Amino acid sequence: MYRTKKRQITQIRAHVPSRRRDSLAAEEPLEIRVEGRPLTITMRTPGDDFDLAAGFLVGEGTIASPDDVTTMRHCADLDTYNVLDVRLAAGVRPPEARNFYTTSSCGVCGKASLEAVRTVARWSAREDPVQLDSSVLEVLPDRLRAAQRVFDRTGGLHAAGLFTAEGEALCVREDVGRHNAVDKLVGWALREGRLPLAGTVLMVSGRASFELVQKAVMAGIPALAAVSAPSSLAVELAAEEGLTLVGFLRGDSMNVYTGEHRLTLMGSGHGSARAAGPG
Amino acid sequence: MYRTKKRQITQIRAHVPSRRRDSLAAEEPLEIRVEGRPLTITMRTPGDDFDLAAGFLVGEGTIASPDDVTTMRHCADLDTYNVLDVRLAAGVRPPEARNFYTTSSCGVCGKASLEAVRTVARWSAREDPVQLDSSVLEVLPDRLRAAQRVFDRTGGLHAAGLFTAEGEALCVREDVGRHNAVDKLVGWALREGRLPLAGTVLMVSGRASFELVQKAVMAGIPALAAVSAPSSLAVELAAEEGLTLVGFLRGDSMNVYTGEHRLTLMGSGHGSARAAGPG
Repeated sequence: MYRTKKRQITQIRAHVPSRRRDSLAAEEPLEIRVEGRPLTITMRTPGDDFDLAAGFLVGEGTIASPDDVTTMRHCADLDTYNVLDVRLAAGVRPPEARNFYTTSSCGVCGKASLEAVRTVARWSAREDPVQLDSSVLEVLPDRLRAAQRVFDRTGGLHAAGLFTAEGEALCVREDVGRHNAVDKLVGWALREGRLPLAGTVLMVSGRASFELVQKAVMAGIPALAAVSAPSSLAVELAAEEGLTLVGFLRGDSMNVYTGEHRLTLMGSGHGSARAAGPG
Repeated sequence: MYRTKKRQITQIRAHVPSRRRDSLAAEEPLEIRVEGRPLTITMRTPGDDFDLAAGFLVGEGTIASPDDVTTMRHCADLDTYNVLDVRLAAGVRPPEARNFYTTSSCGVCGKASLEAVRTVARWSAREDPVQLDSSVLEVLPDRLRAAQRVFDRTGGLHAAGLFTAEGEALCVREDVGRHNAVDKLVGWALREGRLPLAGTVLMVSGRASFELVQKAVMAGIPALAAVSAPSSLAVELAAEEGLTLVGFLRGDSMNVYTGEHRLTLMGSGHGSARAAGPG
């Protein structure tokens, strides 16, 4: 199992070529099976595969505590580490070939996607009383980058970090797929018996999609911060589920899309971001 | 159908909050059906849905010319535009519930993923004689940004542009999902009768994954350029299929991972990038 691969490349700078060795972010397929039955295949960076599978199943609403899983193992009859089988404890229902984009009630639409999350969520972050200061949020992107082990060498990985309200990094994961990085984090938290992740902030290196907000909700995370933009459906789901959603977090600049009641602005004495009122 | 949604947000600049209206990139699920049977659901930015579905089916190896499709329509019995049915011409085999990450021969692994593409590809870009000058590649990121219709307002979209070897934009598409933006381009090209896309360069705003190289191969595109990093498997597939793969394309700086024989360096009189030889 490897996280990077070396390769000879041609670098061109101001029309002058040179040959050098370069590090690439490793990408390999992983098939997740439950009770021997194939559930999904994802392209991921090898490493933390058990956490990836566990976090994925938390996101699907299948498991919520370490006791829900009896064993996880790479399939021994294959000579790769790209097939992983999860056995569930007695009474834990295996996931159906269902997904979050549809409900039986109204087919495929944004509204159905929101409803589907509400139906399967085990806990709600709505009442999470955590307060987040903008001065803490400001340092998260730098701390995320500092904690990344591979990014600097390949530039090809998405990162996700779980932080306390004081800005302490609890866990950082990287992957070629942004959703995989979050699954690996959530799987780590499950294994540590930390679900639901009350009082934490999930920071991601790229955009905030519906899928990422969904994964945060399913892990009981009350706040999601992203370096880049959220999508419309990500904001709608965050609003519906009471999540604080921050985007374009760069230096001391950020956009708060939902849940601004959790934001404080102690750095300037302005008090809660909510004090700004409707503009 | 809409491409952006307006929302009231709180903007924080140097600890000072203010309220303002913001534009968000729209995200909605789209279910693609073939002959009435659900094939896949993707989260996409509404718009160009027919092109998205057609491009997706080109990528799966199902269709390769406009004549392979008889009709495409949004399902009329639903009040959303989120379900789309594709009817195929007589003799065109519907896609199986197969995917590019597995083959019957060796299960799930990177090698199987490469083999699977080779098996279904209709054409090869290996012999495409197009020459690309580094001075042309340099301007593509700016031209892609200039051609984007939504990006400036939301910052939340991936862009993909199809260019001639002279740097002329043939088609630019945006989407919350990078693979959707490429599918929309390829679907446009199918409809225009332009497949295979010999002599063109596909430029994408983010990273180059295995999936994007696969889609380029299936559309007969000989060169893929990305603003950010490629993954290991993306480079392996490009090498295997004879694609030119350029990453970290920023200003007059770029990394050429494969197919450097197509690159010329007229700007400096250095001739082919291949002349650099092994370093």
